[in-house]
Amino acid sequence: MRAILTLNAGSSSLKLGLFSETLETLGFGHVDRIGGQGALRVVDGAGQTLPIPDTRPEDFETHAKALATALAAFHAGFPGLEVIAVGHRVVHGGIDHAAPERITDDLMAELAKLAPFAPLHQPHNLAGVRAALDAFPDAPQIACFDTAFHRNHPFVNDTFALPRRFYEKGVRRYGFHGLSYDYISGELATTEPKLHAGRVVVAHLGSGASMCGLQGGQSIASTMGFSALDGLPMGTRSGQLDPGVLLYLMDQEGMSSGEISDLLYKESGLKGMSGLSNDMRELEASDDPHAAEAIDYFTFRIRRELGALAAALGGLDALVFCGGIGENSAHIRARVCEGMGWIGITLDAGKNAANARHISIGPVEVMVIPTNEELVIARAAHAVLSP
Amino acid sequence: MRAILTLNAGSSSLKLGLFSETLETLGFGHVDRIGGQGALRVVDGAGQTLPIPDTRPEDFETHAKALATALAAFHAGFPGLEVIAVGHRVVHGGIDHAAPERITDDLMAELAKLAPFAPLHQPHNLAGVRAALDAFPDAPQIACFDTAFHRNHPFVNDTFALPRRFYEKGVRRYGFHGLSYDYISGELATTEPKLHAGRVVVAHLGSGASMCGLQGGQSIASTMGFSALDGLPMGTRSGQLDPGVLLYLMDQEGMSSGEISDLLYKESGLKGMSGLSNDMRELEASDDPHAAEAIDYFTFRIRRELGALAAALGGLDALVFCGGIGENSAHIRARVCEGMGWIGITLDAGKNAANARHISIGPVEVMVIPTNEELVIARAAHAVLSP
Repeated sequence: MRAILTLNAGSSSLKLGLFSETLETLGFGHVDRIGGQGALRVVDGAGQTLPIPDTRPEDFETHAKALATALAAFHAGFPGLEVIAVGHRVVHGGIDHAAPERITDDLMAELAKLAPFAPLHQPHNLAGVRAALDAFPDAPQIACFDTAFHRNHPFVNDTFALPRRFYEKGVRRYGFHGLSYDYISGELATTEPKLHAGRVVVAHLGSGASMCGLQGGQSIASTMGFSALDGLPMGTRSGQLDPGVLLYLMDQEGMSSGEISDLLYKESGLKGMSGLSNDMRELEASDDPHAAEAIDYFTFRIRRELGALAAALGGLDALVFCGGIGENSAHIRARVCEGMGWIGITLDAGKNAANARHISIGPVEVMVIPTNEELVIARAAHAVLSP
Repeated sequence: MRAILTLNAGSSSLKLGLFSETLETLGFGHVDRIGGQGALRVVDGAGQTLPIPDTRPEDFETHAKALATALAAFHAGFPGLEVIAVGHRVVHGGIDHAAPERITDDLMAELAKLAPFAPLHQPHNLAGVRAALDAFPDAPQIACFDTAFHRNHPFVNDTFALPRRFYEKGVRRYGFHGLSYDYISGELATTEPKLHAGRVVVAHLGSGASMCGLQGGQSIASTMGFSALDGLPMGTRSGQLDPGVLLYLMDQEGMSSGEISDLLYKESGLKGMSGLSNDMRELEASDDPHAAEAIDYFTFRIRRELGALAAALGGLDALVFCGGIGENSAHIRARVCEGMGWIGITLDAGKNAANARHISIGPVEVMVIPTNEELVIARAAHAVLSP
């Protein structure tokens, strides 16, 4: 069975996707806790868990070992599997990469230089690429950048108000979650061509969260900026923060950049506000007032950014929810849309509760579209095979 | 002549206002370059420059000497002057002060403790207060806080998504320019009661700039947060900045907090983007493309925050411009309102060019209202005299 493999390597996780030559979904693999008590789960295209070979802790010591372990399970589950191309999610493509690109030594060297722009993500992404280059030395491998979809932002959405030398050296508003937005834009083009031609805000709400303003299917603004910290509050990340707070943390709390980074990436957001959990499902189930406050803040900041992105777009024709929270939490969608009648948003409570695709009464269309970043990666790999 | 004196002490400047017992404006004084080549200008209530006694550089060595020099000029210009109360602008009132307050030793000690929250402003404000306490030991003195008007923000507009201990110790969204917003709210109450009861965004655009969302005349949200850095780009301040940029400046550029503070407070904003000037009049007169980009960014960020504040207010009934740029630049007002028809804003070009009070066609009312922070301070002092 000839197949396209997709890889998304995080700091201690590895997500694999398997697609046929005609881009049918064959299965997914998910490795957690690389470097620790590793765990692997493999499902088929229908989401049914597949049996996997026995594993030992040392099978998850490194990204390379975790990949080998997951591939062994894939070979057991999909007899005769032959990987003909590998597509990779790479968080940062820098200034120049506005499209997927075939991986070469030169590209790898260039991407490694971007690590300072995404120190918590880029090195892990590249570790996954290196493991796959070793595992499949003869298969074409393609890098798909989370920044690429946003590279044509107008200047006002690409810059900060700093001296220009910082813009020149790459301190820009890159925006992330581009593979997800690319997928949603493609879905709209196929199924909702009128909306696709108009002004759409997509809210990608998962443990990472951001929003994107689309005009004619192209990204013109994102709530994420230079790093994956900015914009919406997330599971453990702060989102928007007064720069004066960082000066205060340095001067008054005596915190180092490493300590501030840990605070803002790992201890803030829903987890920090609630003091309970970074998982929205747990917060929704809790009756702790701090959990309620975290949800209030999360949904308020989404409304606030929705108004801001509408200003960037010159109005609003549609709002699309995606990501784990966006696709599954009717409560959060309802809270986000509360009091947004002024912008044209009124939810149909029944359709929202049913997670229907169209959930609004109008005039602004509100939709729920399950995103599929893996398919976007697989398509890019497929395009290299059949140019 | 019995009079109320108002004082606004900056790092190297001192602004004085003189009001009658019935709150008529008698005159203003402005000292620049305290500690350097000091300069003093005094005008009467009609804005006519008054002659002042000869001065020497040492007359401006400290805030106390600058105050004595300015008062000598006031005494020369207003024979028989007797200061019966002094009102002070104090940038930070912390968590607890939501109204003006009579200055006592205890209050001074408390305000000094807030200096870490506004290290570039609070110590200078308090130096001005101390100078006035020495000069007028028997007159009641009143502190008016730029944060006070915002102290009743709902929690979502008062917090960041950090662990709660930071909120408890005062890392909050204070908001500033409260004296200006208080004045505008009062003007609306008197002249536009219907708008005052509704949803109004005030854009205070000067060398410092922020926006405030008013509901029923009360502040419910501001673009400034913990410090005077956040929100809109300003003459030399960055405004909104991805916290990841500060981590990058620390880790990759090796900058200290002092260097980052200087960059973000003094070298960014219009000055940093244009590479030319922090003065909007100079940028408007320039044909340098970088000046045009700085104006593009400034006006775009105002539009973006206008959409965001409308979301916080649940819609928009009016937009009010004030501050040096807001009151005087028809071009900037026109650029801000460009493409905002979706929110109900359409300018009347002729009225805008004439700096008229009402400058829109509708349905959202757009107004220009000259602000008067000194009068708000004088009123607070007056209230202490006639409780």
